[in-house]
Amino acid sequence: MAEPIINLTRGMPPPDVFPTEDLIRCAEAALRRDPDVLLQYGRSPGYGPLREWLGQRYGVGADQILIGNSSLEIFSFATQTLLRPGDRAFVESPSYDRTIALLRRAGAQVVGIPLEGEGGLNVAVLEEELKRGVPALMYLITDFHNPTGTTTSLEKRGRLADLAEEHGFWIVEDSPYRLLRYGGQDVPTLWSLAPARVLHVSSFSKLLAPGLRLGYVVGPVEAIATLAEWAVDSYIGPVLPTQGMVYEYCRQGLLQPNIERLKEVYRPRLQTALSALQRHLPRATWTHPEGGFYIGVTLPEGNDMTSLRAQAEEVGLKLSDGRGFFAHAADGDRFLRIPFCSVTPEEIEEGMMRLARLL
Amino acid sequence: MAEPIINLTRGMPPPDVFPTEDLIRCAEAALRRDPDVLLQYGRSPGYGPLREWLGQRYGVGADQILIGNSSLEIFSFATQTLLRPGDRAFVESPSYDRTIALLRRAGAQVVGIPLEGEGGLNVAVLEEELKRGVPALMYLITDFHNPTGTTTSLEKRGRLADLAEEHGFWIVEDSPYRLLRYGGQDVPTLWSLAPARVLHVSSFSKLLAPGLRLGYVVGPVEAIATLAEWAVDSYIGPVLPTQGMVYEYCRQGLLQPNIERLKEVYRPRLQTALSALQRHLPRATWTHPEGGFYIGVTLPEGNDMTSLRAQAEEVGLKLSDGRGFFAHAADGDRFLRIPFCSVTPEEIEEGMMRLARLL
Repeated sequence: MAEPIINLTRGMPPPDVFPTEDLIRCAEAALRRDPDVLLQYGRSPGYGPLREWLGQRYGVGADQILIGNSSLEIFSFATQTLLRPGDRAFVESPSYDRTIALLRRAGAQVVGIPLEGEGGLNVAVLEEELKRGVPALMYLITDFHNPTGTTTSLEKRGRLADLAEEHGFWIVEDSPYRLLRYGGQDVPTLWSLAPARVLHVSSFSKLLAPGLRLGYVVGPVEAIATLAEWAVDSYIGPVLPTQGMVYEYCRQGLLQPNIERLKEVYRPRLQTALSALQRHLPRATWTHPEGGFYIGVTLPEGNDMTSLRAQAEEVGLKLSDGRGFFAHAADGDRFLRIPFCSVTPEEIEEGMMRLARLL
Repeated sequence: MAEPIINLTRGMPPPDVFPTEDLIRCAEAALRRDPDVLLQYGRSPGYGPLREWLGQRYGVGADQILIGNSSLEIFSFATQTLLRPGDRAFVESPSYDRTIALLRRAGAQVVGIPLEGEGGLNVAVLEEELKRGVPALMYLITDFHNPTGTTTSLEKRGRLADLAEEHGFWIVEDSPYRLLRYGGQDVPTLWSLAPARVLHVSSFSKLLAPGLRLGYVVGPVEAIATLAEWAVDSYIGPVLPTQGMVYEYCRQGLLQPNIERLKEVYRPRLQTALSALQRHLPRATWTHPEGGFYIGVTLPEGNDMTSLRAQAEEVGLKLSDGRGFFAHAADGDRFLRIPFCSVTPEEIEEGMMRLARLL
């Protein structure tokens, strides 16, 4: 009998953490209180009360918040309004594969700036690339990076903020994992360091449920107005009943306890994964994330993605192709993203054992 | 004391028709039955059971259905996948203003084909334009047209189907009002006449509630797959809890009774509007819709939009600028769209009286 398949490709929460009953109650309360708004056309950048709530959380006015149908789509609107075909766009190397794809779809020339160590990208390389040409925008995942799990240091955030202001380019700071910190100390957001140059993007996908597709962006009033105009032209208004549901959830004070509950589920999974790597893959190197969803593993020399994934498939282990995360694909030939939240500690342990036998 | 404002700009249902309590019950039932799908990432063209349900309704497989966050956004995906900048796109003249805007955003050269009488566009002009250059796509609202309320005749649908097949261009048939027929007989959809060349787009905005932003498209398997790929790249998956809610509503057999209830509300509003036009605006001409949301009025010569709207504002009457509905704006200088569903019969009567005093 075949062993159960272990899937290490999924950057998604396990469904058993969804607070379904609370969400049902919140949907009911929201729709009953405000049906004329939530069920009607809303030619606006999101449900007003939720924009207000988010604005208070970030210490800004609601006019600095746009809520859309996923942070990814908000990023796609940013590529369409901030970029022209042929413009340069900088990303960390590696970075989120879907973002790289959207930048290319918008016609951008995507330049990967390598990460170094665990503190974020190589600023010297960034400065060299800026001499070759200032990008229209730079995309960064500053907290618990996807796919490596690393967090940009405060020092590097300061340099990035200075460079964006000095050269006049936009930074999109994608921050869906920031509140899922299992150890260590918060670092100030890049947005807080350069609020005139940073669009801070986040979502409820990792804190509540991805199916809501509820993403948002915090930024300067004029930049938000430009994104809002593009959004209204695209779909008139975003889906509203789910925004009402999430507003009610937040208003009732349920978000923070849910985040604490998620941390209790995910923290031991991170610990198990790090310990299993230590025991089973001593010749590999890996990152030591303090939060989020991923560990980035660099396999020993002599391995390559194509044969490894085929062999893994044979022993019931599904792996992501590391090359998809790199602007220059070949750079990812020994890179493995380990998503530790979507699997149980037992599955992580078993997955690392199977992987070790292949290397 | 100022008289109450009468707003004749809104192409939206009045909020008092929303079946709020049924929708609340359906959200609860759907989320409780299928939380692992509705709250999770769904890298798919919509919620599977709703695609199946719609497929059965149209007599096609689920692989011919894509559900998205509004039919407008689906149209925007169509412009991005079917059109290249500089391509020609044909629309009826007048047509839906937001569609014209999206075509222009995609870089299309928009050509308006005039409507003639109440049976649809002027086919002779269309044939002349085809000689000048075949469009990448043609956008039509065949049933209860926005903004004129007219319905394309079967004969013209047949000619359109033939021409699309002969010249090899796509037709997007936008059909949100089709099921809101208050009199007369259904005409077969253009899609049913040329299924290989037509993308039939519709939504639940007018049948249930616009805030759901639940639109869909029926088309050939390959065209749907292309749109689905673009959609997944844009937002991974659409908002799902609302799709679950609507599926449950349909599954319970609530949609058809709701449509019948809406017809009972809207039919007398259409009759009142037609009668008020007859009594108060004898020198204007107007269409005689058998369904939908709009009557198209052509004002007597000597009127123009800029001064009329300013004067109307002074007597508490808000009017849409007719020029926005025409590819060539000046053609709409005497055109008025009367949306009769969003206002009560008393408001329609009063609105037409105020309008008559201005002309």
